[in-house]
Amino acid sequence: MSLRTLSAATSVLALAIAGIGIQPTPARADEGMWTFNNFPIAAVNARYGTSIDQAWLDRIQNAAVRISGCSASLVSGEGLILTNHHCVVGCVQDLSDAQNDYVKNGWMPATREEEKQCPGQTAEILTQITDVTDRVLAAGAGLEGAAFVQARGAETQAIQQEVCGDDVKLTCQVISFYRGGQYALYKFRKYEDVRLAFAPEFQAAFFGGDPDNFNFPRYALDFGMLRIYEDGKPVETPNHLTWNPNAPKEGDPVFVAGNPGSTSRLLTISQLERLRDQVQPLTLIQQSELRGRMTQYSFTDEEAARVAVDPIFGLENSFKATYGQQQALLDPDFMQVKRDEEARIRGAVEADPDLTARIGDPWADLEAIQARATELYLPYRQLEASAGGGSTLYSMAKQIVRASKERAKPANERRAGYSDGDLANLARRATQAFPIATDLDQIQLTFWLSKTREYLTVDNADVQRLLGRESPEALAARLVSGTGLADPARRGELLAMTPEQLAASGDPMIELVLRNDDAAQALRAGWEAGVSGPTARAAEKVAQARFAVLGSNQYPDATFSLRLSYGQVQGWTYRGTQVPAFTYMGGLYDRATGSQPFVLAQAFADNEAKVNKETVYDFSSTNDIIGGNSGSPVINAAGEVIGAAFDGNIHSLGGAFGYDAELNRTVSVSTAAITEALRNVYDQPRLLAELGVE
Amino acid sequence: MSLRTLSAATSVLALAIAGIGIQPTPARADEGMWTFNNFPIAAVNARYGTSIDQAWLDRIQNAAVRISGCSASLVSGEGLILTNHHCVVGCVQDLSDAQNDYVKNGWMPATREEEKQCPGQTAEILTQITDVTDRVLAAGAGLEGAAFVQARGAETQAIQQEVCGDDVKLTCQVISFYRGGQYALYKFRKYEDVRLAFAPEFQAAFFGGDPDNFNFPRYALDFGMLRIYEDGKPVETPNHLTWNPNAPKEGDPVFVAGNPGSTSRLLTISQLERLRDQVQPLTLIQQSELRGRMTQYSFTDEEAARVAVDPIFGLENSFKATYGQQQALLDPDFMQVKRDEEARIRGAVEADPDLTARIGDPWADLEAIQARATELYLPYRQLEASAGGGSTLYSMAKQIVRASKERAKPANERRAGYSDGDLANLARRATQAFPIATDLDQIQLTFWLSKTREYLTVDNADVQRLLGRESPEALAARLVSGTGLADPARRGELLAMTPEQLAASGDPMIELVLRNDDAAQALRAGWEAGVSGPTARAAEKVAQARFAVLGSNQYPDATFSLRLSYGQVQGWTYRGTQVPAFTYMGGLYDRATGSQPFVLAQAFADNEAKVNKETVYDFSSTNDIIGGNSGSPVINAAGEVIGAAFDGNIHSLGGAFGYDAELNRTVSVSTAAITEALRNVYDQPRLLAELGVE
Repeated sequence: MSLRTLSAATSVLALAIAGIGIQPTPARADEGMWTFNNFPIAAVNARYGTSIDQAWLDRIQNAAVRISGCSASLVSGEGLILTNHHCVVGCVQDLSDAQNDYVKNGWMPATREEEKQCPGQTAEILTQITDVTDRVLAAGAGLEGAAFVQARGAETQAIQQEVCGDDVKLTCQVISFYRGGQYALYKFRKYEDVRLAFAPEFQAAFFGGDPDNFNFPRYALDFGMLRIYEDGKPVETPNHLTWNPNAPKEGDPVFVAGNPGSTSRLLTISQLERLRDQVQPLTLIQQSELRGRMTQYSFTDEEAARVAVDPIFGLENSFKATYGQQQALLDPDFMQVKRDEEARIRGAVEADPDLTARIGDPWADLEAIQARATELYLPYRQLEASAGGGSTLYSMAKQIVRASKERAKPANERRAGYSDGDLANLARRATQAFPIATDLDQIQLTFWLSKTREYLTVDNADVQRLLGRESPEALAARLVSGTGLADPARRGELLAMTPEQLAASGDPMIELVLRNDDAAQALRAGWEAGVSGPTARAAEKVAQARFAVLGSNQYPDATFSLRLSYGQVQGWTYRGTQVPAFTYMGGLYDRATGSQPFVLAQAFADNEAKVNKETVYDFSSTNDIIGGNSGSPVINAAGEVIGAAFDGNIHSLGGAFGYDAELNRTVSVSTAAITEALRNVYDQPRLLAELGVE
Repeated sequence: MSLRTLSAATSVLALAIAGIGIQPTPARADEGMWTFNNFPIAAVNARYGTSIDQAWLDRIQNAAVRISGCSASLVSGEGLILTNHHCVVGCVQDLSDAQNDYVKNGWMPATREEEKQCPGQTAEILTQITDVTDRVLAAGAGLEGAAFVQARGAETQAIQQEVCGDDVKLTCQVISFYRGGQYALYKFRKYEDVRLAFAPEFQAAFFGGDPDNFNFPRYALDFGMLRIYEDGKPVETPNHLTWNPNAPKEGDPVFVAGNPGSTSRLLTISQLERLRDQVQPLTLIQQSELRGRMTQYSFTDEEAARVAVDPIFGLENSFKATYGQQQALLDPDFMQVKRDEEARIRGAVEADPDLTARIGDPWADLEAIQARATELYLPYRQLEASAGGGSTLYSMAKQIVRASKERAKPANERRAGYSDGDLANLARRATQAFPIATDLDQIQLTFWLSKTREYLTVDNADVQRLLGRESPEALAARLVSGTGLADPARRGELLAMTPEQLAASGDPMIELVLRNDDAAQALRAGWEAGVSGPTARAAEKVAQARFAVLGSNQYPDATFSLRLSYGQVQGWTYRGTQVPAFTYMGGLYDRATGSQPFVLAQAFADNEAKVNKETVYDFSSTNDIIGGNSGSPVINAAGEVIGAAFDGNIHSLGGAFGYDAELNRTVSVSTAAITEALRNVYDQPRLLAELGVE
């Protein structure tokens, strides 16, 4: 599962490319994805007249839920979870088939007993944060390259094992903050039986589709509901947020609790330049071609259209986000702000002999690392990091092969992520049943093989080993038709095999992965020794320099760990045009053209007369969030949930590199709209009662 | 018809992205795409011991042929023309249908009488060059923006009309050199009946496909033959090149005569930066997605694969060339060389009061123009410059609508390109019959409409007018199924209509173009007033500065006009690896894997025993060429043809911006290989006799 990024304005393509838009301002107002143990309580209370305290923060933390690639929150005492529709649509798809299309028609069980488990979905609630910086730093002391990476990995594994052991109800994760400036152990209570409680029609949740994504005004009912179960029963969750069915007012302070996936605000100029000149262009180009293949495939027939909906959404969403980020990196003014900041910190270190002695010149180290990374990147990406091109079958084969090889080693020599507990987790997940769209898998494999040959050349020995004498098309077809990996039982059998047994298994996908694996592991080792290891060392020094020069009142880059952002409900003004903070349900009917993706969902069309069109639908606020925050509860000063964040405006896309207080906005669906839809569109008195709304 | 660019090394994707490769060297050896009236005769003779004189140049000029997007040469006294297979494959496709696939099987008429006309193909031979710089410059004097563009256009039109009138056997074209430093009238003898004389199997011509394109060593028989006819008979062409069936030796001097399409070596830094940051990324992204759509479509069935072959080749070829160019622009060292050169010329102008008075600061003007261009580019591109997305049906509808509107004006008020003669030409071309792959047309239209909405946004008034309430998919389907434009007779009827009659014609494609036309023409006018007009003025000043500082012994940027490049047969050395100058026919058999695109052509497989595997197949030379040179004769010092240029190596792609003598290589198929193939693979004694080879 890849991190689900935010779904959210086409106009990024038009506006940002014009070199306008993203401009980091000196104002720090509302900026930051703060950890719960370093939240600027006093500053926020002063700014907004709120009375946040540690107990308030604890209550929010206890109700915040991390799910695959997304954020969520408990909203009833019986395990009910609020998140986005686009965070549960994969599950809706898994529960659908050609005859029962719940993506199209919505998932609306008449009784709680009909709620069904989402394959592979987990829900995690953060229970404890422990600083482990000293232990982690000590583990790598005096080591370089691959040895450094190995020692750090082993220590991380040991810390996690000490606290969580092999308890399947716990997750322990050592997380890096400030790009290595601090490390903390995050301990979670984990739930593995997560069921789908409610999903509206796709066309209601994602009205406006890709054209409206990252746009505002917006008319999307992008919410879905899950429920956590244990021992076959809903979990009792007294620590839930109170549902407030009333929309906020402009200027109201609002908080967003969730798991922003990744930001790059602390990267140095040389790192940003390599992103801009190598990584992002390649990503945009490859995503675009794959998007073209999937889109054309989706035109084949109704079933193709059905299975391709979510994969295409994911690609388009990721493309638009990356495109928007790239416009920030291409903006000379934006980069100059970054350059100036770096020069200031670097200058301060150079001016202070003690600092120089302690920190050295990590910026120069990172420049040298970028040159090495540029050389290593393409083969590492194609044959290891992105091998398989998104194919689920390939990914499972790779997990099985790697697990088998690591299991054969003594526990203390294994790579991080392959403890006995990890392997048991993997076996549980791998044997769950879920549908695999093999046509799409074949498209992804064909595309990956074809691009690997294109970028690494036909004369590359690793490519020749991968393809043999077959074409990418023929090889992918043979792999998909011949593999047994679509069968959960067969996955379980393969997962139990030794590498030698795997080699003799006759499964062509396993055989392909085995064929590629020595080259892929060598590329990974080279990357760790030449790039990720040295980068971790240098970035740690940059973080120390920032603390020394800027003080400790900083927030770290996002790492898909729980954060809190503060702000207020507010629209924005761009080039003289005011964008109001609210949309209303009546606006949906005005925007519907009758052609996709601007067709009304059936229930909205049928119940138009009943809908209160004055209801606030979606709203924008100044909170600083990013992909991974999808589904985050939007919380008022009283700690009640008033919405679910699902998007950013176009100007938020540069947020990967810097926050612009004037323009960066979070977009959320209001609890007011959800309540109205449950009452007058979808007729769900049972859920309304559970939410405390009659 | 778009300019057919060179077909030619995957490794560009791998190597150039690593920031290596393109490095302009100070050496001027073998650099330049020289005009026939300013060829450095003395320098070349001194360097290579040749005895080139004006008479030698005249003979080459008289045998050089310009065809649609490509280059070619006369190689017999009976109108026989040598060019590349990839320059005639469109015609081969036009002559094919689902039952007779000449692309796959080759076009090999048993008799001359069976040679068939290539729809729309013309052949032009340059007969006269006249300097018209003073007249053109005088026409724009004192004018700005749109008025300047209009006055220049009118004068250009007048010059052409004076010399060629409406004679259908002549083409007159005023061509800009040195980006406005000089203007010349090029007068051509034109032939409109061009027939297909021979084409090998696609799999022989394009063995290795996209993976090997822009690569070397190479094993491609990329040649095809046309013949010019007049009054139903082959044209007598005593002025042809002599066919030399022997391969050259390493170090032999060689000349390439042809029509390089476009280079950007004289662009200023601000122009290059806008290319790098706006135009090229967008082009790469859009090409990639369309490539994905077309590729997936081509997997549908055999007929889809058949009709998509050439369009996909064109896209892939253009993508790879643009990608390679972009790597040059992303190379900081490369850009620094450009910056230094600009600073030197700019500094010399500033240091000289007379020059400053005459030239001013066109570099600053161009910087300001880029800011304006950045703003205007997206709508101009989507709604005017690239409107229709390559759809043939849309393009014809646009020609018809524009012709109708211009015809309604007095002759002296019409835009350039709409004289009575031009309109008569258009009518002749438009009523020729040729097959249109409507599925592909619909893919191109759908994609264009969809991207136009994506980039300009759904809320853009022009987009709303274009789409109405339809989706891009539904609109494109309705346009393609409803238009009468696939019928040549109907095209003739529509072409005779007034704008009012067109509006009432009921043709949905015409209706769409009319709906978009006011916006499109306004965008064009805005672009001319804000960008192309001011750029022409400023570029002219930059050219004058270059002449003043560097002297007149310069070659101009390529403009798809006849040029001559000199060089020698030579391989190259890259990172310690020597690439030899020659491949041999035996190498083809070694490289064949049996999987596409590395399958042997049937005739090559069948006749393997007869083929002399020691025959030189393809060879590389130091000539400075670029897209548009495809099909150019490669000529030895004696003026004999010894090959047809069809490609460049990967390092040649940066050639759009600068020539690297160490690495930039032209790739040609030898007459030795063509002769061997005609003799022992395709058994064509008739053609061999005509070429003087028994």
